[in-house]
Amino acid sequence: MFDSIIIGMGPAGIEAGIYLKRYGLNALVIGKDLGALEKAHEIENYYGVGKISGIDLAKNSLKNALNLEVMINKDEVIAIEYGDNCFIVKTTKNEYQAKTILIATGKARNSFQLAKEYEGKGVSYCATCDGFFYRKKKIGIVGYNEYMLSELNALLPLTKDITVFTNGETLNVNIPNAIPVVTTKITKLGGSDKLQFVICEDKEYQLDGLFIALGSQNAFTLAKHLGLEINNNNLVVNKNYMTNIPGIFAAGDVIGGLLQVVKAASDGANAAYNIKEYLRLQND
Amino acid sequence: MFDSIIIGMGPAGIEAGIYLKRYGLNALVIGKDLGALEKAHEIENYYGVGKISGIDLAKNSLKNALNLEVMINKDEVIAIEYGDNCFIVKTTKNEYQAKTILIATGKARNSFQLAKEYEGKGVSYCATCDGFFYRKKKIGIVGYNEYMLSELNALLPLTKDITVFTNGETLNVNIPNAIPVVTTKITKLGGSDKLQFVICEDKEYQLDGLFIALGSQNAFTLAKHLGLEINNNNLVVNKNYMTNIPGIFAAGDVIGGLLQVVKAASDGANAAYNIKEYLRLQND
Repeated sequence: MFDSIIIGMGPAGIEAGIYLKRYGLNALVIGKDLGALEKAHEIENYYGVGKISGIDLAKNSLKNALNLEVMINKDEVIAIEYGDNCFIVKTTKNEYQAKTILIATGKARNSFQLAKEYEGKGVSYCATCDGFFYRKKKIGIVGYNEYMLSELNALLPLTKDITVFTNGETLNVNIPNAIPVVTTKITKLGGSDKLQFVICEDKEYQLDGLFIALGSQNAFTLAKHLGLEINNNNLVVNKNYMTNIPGIFAAGDVIGGLLQVVKAASDGANAAYNIKEYLRLQND
Repeated sequence: MFDSIIIGMGPAGIEAGIYLKRYGLNALVIGKDLGALEKAHEIENYYGVGKISGIDLAKNSLKNALNLEVMINKDEVIAIEYGDNCFIVKTTKNEYQAKTILIATGKARNSFQLAKEYEGKGVSYCATCDGFFYRKKKIGIVGYNEYMLSELNALLPLTKDITVFTNGETLNVNIPNAIPVVTTKITKLGGSDKLQFVICEDKEYQLDGLFIALGSQNAFTLAKHLGLEINNNNLVVNKNYMTNIPGIFAAGDVIGGLLQVVKAASDGANAAYNIKEYLRLQND
């Protein structure tokens, strides 16, 4: 059992990993990529570091963290579940238990704007939360990778009438043969009070519900699954960087504020301090 | 007139200077030394930077800031006063006007613990605030440098019966010949309800009041002079990093929290953002 699992290996996640290591705690950082830093062409306002590309800063930080024996796995989280007095973190390769979770996945974005109008009216971001309402109904699921598959598997016991929409992406997981796959782009969602159909480049599909499982498990979908409070697309945390769920913390761009390396890294250090304090009080 | 004068050239001050420059504002950083970083033997938990000494990190940061054309003066602030719709910052070499002030002087410490018991009972940290209560009384002033001299000059119009106590330090400013100077260490303060005497290594001195002006104008004494709220030896700021006095902001160790480079630098960036917003609203 890990003291903490940190999701995300941008500045907040890596800095939190370093601090937790220094506090003598057993932490694991899981990240699928270097986050927003990868796209930062040039940074020159990060204290103590001269002009540097985002990718170099991120790579240096990984190297430094590994030198300090911070445990880092390049992997993708597909689900977080509540276990017996712990959290269970499922990735594409493995499954871990942890006493606390730190969400440091970067800016929480709802990446499927088309669906915004029908959120809560037929559009869902969480099979576990909302699947029950669509028993034996005709539903669609938007996605193309491991994360879509995990959502699909949560829906299959409830209804067999499921269509996968890859929204123009290539399907890169194996799904049951019986499931139809639409690989054209979705251009419109429609219906009067609630979602009734989806129009793709090829044709129109009648649906009772549509589950969005695009890209990877990001902060937005994690939050929906776990019941975390969101405000203005940011995870809401208290002054101890803890979300509304005890033991789940968040840091970096995902909690809003200045979207800057120095602020994200500082959040990571602060969250690590508060995770240490939280664990200490649990042990008292 | 500067948009902002930043006092302190540690991580918070320098990072704020860089951000204000990037916001296109006219800011000046004034610092007397590199702060607590100078004493940090080795740092290895600052995101993106490998093992480094505090002094090297501080020097790199100065170099980077100067490359970005941040204005930095190595100088010592001896007073901040309220001017006509501005603040007046007096240093040992100069006098400046600014629309806003950022205090980033590092941990606010009351460096004269002996006097703690008599604070408000004969011991003061601010000649301008409390001098009036000691008109024609017998007072002492503890200090040895420019800052002591500026406090002495504020007291001389009120009473001529002043003794300077250097507390074992060498007096390094010129004071009027008529003022007696005691260069031995202070070992005890005494009196029943209020301060009545000071015992030095050589002898006992009867006093009605004692003004502490040791070392330089630090956050603690700045705060006393300006009427800033202090809690647990930290300057109190709101979520916008502003103190209880509009236009005076604070960042870094001086506001408490994690005493870490990454947190101080992040505070500096956040304070700069809020100074920019404050100035924008003033201009509206």
